[in-house]
Amino acid sequence: MAQKPSIPKGTRDFSPVEMAKRNYIFDTIRSVFSLYGYQQIETPAMETLQTLMGKYGEEGDKLLFKVLNSGDYLSKVTDEELCERNSLHMASRLCEKGLRYDLTVPFARYVVMHRDELQLPFKRYQIQPVWRADRPQKGRYREFYQCDADVVGSDSLLNEVELMQIVDTVFCRFGIRVAIKINNRKILSGIAEVIGEADKIVDITVAIDKLDKIGIDNVNAELRADGISEEAIDKLQPIINMKGTNEEKLDVIAGLLSGSETGMKGVDETRFILNSLKAAGLKNCIDLDLTLARGLNYYTGAIFEVKALDIPMGSITGGGRYDNLTGIFGMPGLSGVGISFGADRIFDVLNALELYPDDAVNGTQLLFINFGDAEVDYCLPLVAAARNAGIRTELFPDAAKMKKQMAYANAKGIRFVALAGDNEIAEGKVTLRDMATGDQRLVDCEELVSQIKGI
Amino acid sequence: MAQKPSIPKGTRDFSPVEMAKRNYIFDTIRSVFSLYGYQQIETPAMETLQTLMGKYGEEGDKLLFKVLNSGDYLSKVTDEELCERNSLHMASRLCEKGLRYDLTVPFARYVVMHRDELQLPFKRYQIQPVWRADRPQKGRYREFYQCDADVVGSDSLLNEVELMQIVDTVFCRFGIRVAIKINNRKILSGIAEVIGEADKIVDITVAIDKLDKIGIDNVNAELRADGISEEAIDKLQPIINMKGTNEEKLDVIAGLLSGSETGMKGVDETRFILNSLKAAGLKNCIDLDLTLARGLNYYTGAIFEVKALDIPMGSITGGGRYDNLTGIFGMPGLSGVGISFGADRIFDVLNALELYPDDAVNGTQLLFINFGDAEVDYCLPLVAAARNAGIRTELFPDAAKMKKQMAYANAKGIRFVALAGDNEIAEGKVTLRDMATGDQRLVDCEELVSQIKGI
Repeated sequence: MAQKPSIPKGTRDFSPVEMAKRNYIFDTIRSVFSLYGYQQIETPAMETLQTLMGKYGEEGDKLLFKVLNSGDYLSKVTDEELCERNSLHMASRLCEKGLRYDLTVPFARYVVMHRDELQLPFKRYQIQPVWRADRPQKGRYREFYQCDADVVGSDSLLNEVELMQIVDTVFCRFGIRVAIKINNRKILSGIAEVIGEADKIVDITVAIDKLDKIGIDNVNAELRADGISEEAIDKLQPIINMKGTNEEKLDVIAGLLSGSETGMKGVDETRFILNSLKAAGLKNCIDLDLTLARGLNYYTGAIFEVKALDIPMGSITGGGRYDNLTGIFGMPGLSGVGISFGADRIFDVLNALELYPDDAVNGTQLLFINFGDAEVDYCLPLVAAARNAGIRTELFPDAAKMKKQMAYANAKGIRFVALAGDNEIAEGKVTLRDMATGDQRLVDCEELVSQIKGI
Repeated sequence: MAQKPSIPKGTRDFSPVEMAKRNYIFDTIRSVFSLYGYQQIETPAMETLQTLMGKYGEEGDKLLFKVLNSGDYLSKVTDEELCERNSLHMASRLCEKGLRYDLTVPFARYVVMHRDELQLPFKRYQIQPVWRADRPQKGRYREFYQCDADVVGSDSLLNEVELMQIVDTVFCRFGIRVAIKINNRKILSGIAEVIGEADKIVDITVAIDKLDKIGIDNVNAELRADGISEEAIDKLQPIINMKGTNEEKLDVIAGLLSGSETGMKGVDETRFILNSLKAAGLKNCIDLDLTLARGLNYYTGAIFEVKALDIPMGSITGGGRYDNLTGIFGMPGLSGVGISFGADRIFDVLNALELYPDDAVNGTQLLFINFGDAEVDYCLPLVAAARNAGIRTELFPDAAKMKKQMAYANAKGIRFVALAGDNEIAEGKVTLRDMATGDQRLVDCEELVSQIKGI
C-alpha cells in the first residue's frame, strides 16, 4: 500500500526559488570570505561521539543526534545493561557516531588532525548544515546551515578588525543596513571585579544581556535574585545606562575600571579595534555596547553581534575571540576568533525588505514551444545556439497543448517564448514573444540572441 | 586528558585546495544544469525510515545509517524485545529516521509532497552528500556527494536527448574527452525474448555487463552457470560481438528483434535519440553499446554511461529512464529520466590529466607584510583599496619575522607580496614583489591594482 510521505519534524525541503535565494546568500558571503583570504573546508556530517560529547554542556549532549552502529550493534551490550534501561548510558553503547552540532568543534578537531599541513594563522570558512534535537518551533529547525569564518593561530587584534570589515562588506553587498555591536569579555570581567562581584560574572552578564528584552527594572530584579549586593547593583547602573560616542564610553569605562588589570586590557583592545576600523573606513556604524554579553563561557576577548536596522529581528551575525579552542584535543595555546552568519535570518531579512536582485533567481530565460517532431527538428539547432550564447533555454519536451506550455512558462517565470510553426520555418525565423510586455516579433537566430541578451 | 581526535571510518575532511577543486566541479555542472533550465532543490539529510526502508533492497536496508530517537527512546521497547536481541527489529524500534542513501528516493518523496506546487515536467537538480554503511575501501566512502539531474512528468525522448547534451557540454567545459555509451532496457528485454530466455533477463544482463572486465569466455561460462541454454548463448554471440556504426548496429538488431514488440520499441527509441543528437551536434562521440546494462530493476528505457577516453577509470556519469518512480509514495504514472555525475571520479580524472584551470584554486592573490603598528596603519587603506578592486588580499595579522610571513605566502601560493617600510611610507608607495618571477618594484596604489589585475 502506498505510504503518505513526510519528512522528520524540524527539517525542511528547499524549493527551487528558496534554493536560488540561498545560493545568492552563500555565494555573496563566500566571495567576501575569499576576498579576505579565507579558504573553505568541509568536514564530515558524522563525527565520533568522542569528539562531540562534553563540548556543549549536559543539555547539548542530549541534543546530539546519535547514529546507531552498523551490523550486530547489540552484541556488545550485556543483559544487565539492557535491563537497566538507562537511555543515556545505552546510547553510548549503541552509538559511536553523532551528527555535527556546530562547525566550531569539527574545526578544532580539523586543526588538530591536520596540524602538520597547516600554515598558521589558518583562516578558514565553512558552510554546512548542523543538526540539533531541539524542540522544533517557529524559526528553529533541527537541521540548519551555519556559515562560519574563523582564524586560529594569531593573537593579533587585526583579525577582529578584519572580521568587522567582512561583516561590513557582506551587508553592503546585500544592501542591508546594520548596526555592529561590539564589547569585550575582559571589560565585563573588569566590571564584575570593580563592583565587588567577580565570582558572579556569569549571572551578571546573563542578566544584563536581557536589557533589550525585559528592561532595566527586571534586570535589576534578576540581579537581586542572583544574590548580587545592592551596592554592586547601584554601581552597575551608570554602566548599563551609559550613553555617548564610543570614545566617550571608553573614557568613562576606563575611569571606572582603572583598578582592574583585566578590565583595562579589554578597554585597550576595544580602543585598538575601533581606531583601526576608523582607519579602514566602515560603511556601517559600529557601537560599543557594554550590555552585549553572548555565551560567556566560550569567549575570552572581543565579542560582536550584528542587527538589521530596518526590521525588528534578533542578531543576524555574531562572534568573538576564544582562547584554547584546540586544547580539548591536545593542542593547547592556540587562540582563535570567528564569526557566524545566520543564513536563515538573513534570508528572512532579504525577503522582508525585498532586497534580492532580479538575477538572484536565475531561472530559465527562454522557452521554445513544442509543436511536434518536424518543428522540434527545426528548433533544436536554435536551442543549441541560444545556450551557446549563454541564454538559459528550454525546449518544452512534449507537443502538449499551447495553453499548457504557456502555463509552464508563466509558472517558471520565463521571460521569453519562441514559437516556430510553418510560417516561421518557411522564413527561417522564429516568433519571439516577450512575456513581460506582450510584444512579439519575427527574428532570426542572431536577433533572438541579441534581444534576450540586451535585456 | 586530551583525546587524540579522529573521524569515522569512510569519511573525509576536505582541505582548502580540495574544496576549491570540488567547487570548480560543482559550479561548472551547476551552471550547465541551469543553462538547460534545471532548478536546484535540497532535501533534509535525515528522512523517515518509512521513506527509506525497502527502496534499496534487503542489502540497502542494512546499509542505511539509522538515527537514534531522542529522549527516552527505550521506553517504548518491551522487555521481550530487549531480550530477543534482534538487531534489525530493534533498530526499527529505536530509530525513526535515517540518513539519505541516494538523491532519487528523496526526490520522489519531494515530488509527491509538493505535487500541488509543481509545474510538470519538473526539471530539478540536487547536489548533496549521501551516506552508506558500506565497508570502506579505496575510492568507496561512507559519505559522498551525489550530483543528479532528473526530469519527471514527461515521456518525451527529447529529455534523454537533452541529458546527453548536458553530458556533452559539461565534459567539454572540463576539457575531458569522453565516450557516451547508450543502450535501452527494452532492447535488452527483446534480446532475452528472442533467444528464448525472457525470464532470465536479469541474469543475462548481469553477465554481459561484465564483458569489459572478465572477457567473453567467462561471460559465457556465467551464462551457462545461470542455466541459460547453449542455443540461447549461441544466439547471443553475434549480439555481444556486434561491430559497426550505431546505424549499422541498429539495423542488425532491428532485424534480430523484429519478433519482439518491446525490443522494436527500444530500437525506435534509440534511433530517435541518436538522430536528434546528430541534429543537435555533440562534440563527444556517442556509441550504442548493447552490452551496457546498469541496475536493471530500476531502469525501463534508455540507459547511458560515460567513460573518460584518456585515462582508465570506471564510469564517471550514468543514468537512464525509469517509470513509476513516485508510485511507491502513492502518485502513479509519472515517468522520469535522470543522470548522475560522479564527482569523486571526475575529481580524480581532472587531477590525473591536470585539467584544472589556474583560477580554479582561487586563493589569495596579494599579501601585505606586517612590519608593526605604524606600518599597518599605513597599509590598511591600501589593503582596503586592493579588496575594493576585487583583489583577494591579506594583511599578515602579526608582526612576525619576515621569514615566517614569506613562508606563509609560499605555503598559500600567494603570487604577490607588498612591503611598506620607512622608505616606502616616505614616498607614499609600496614595494610589490612578484613571487613567480622575483621581480619587485616600487608602485603607488593605482599601479599596485593594475599590475595584479593585469596578470
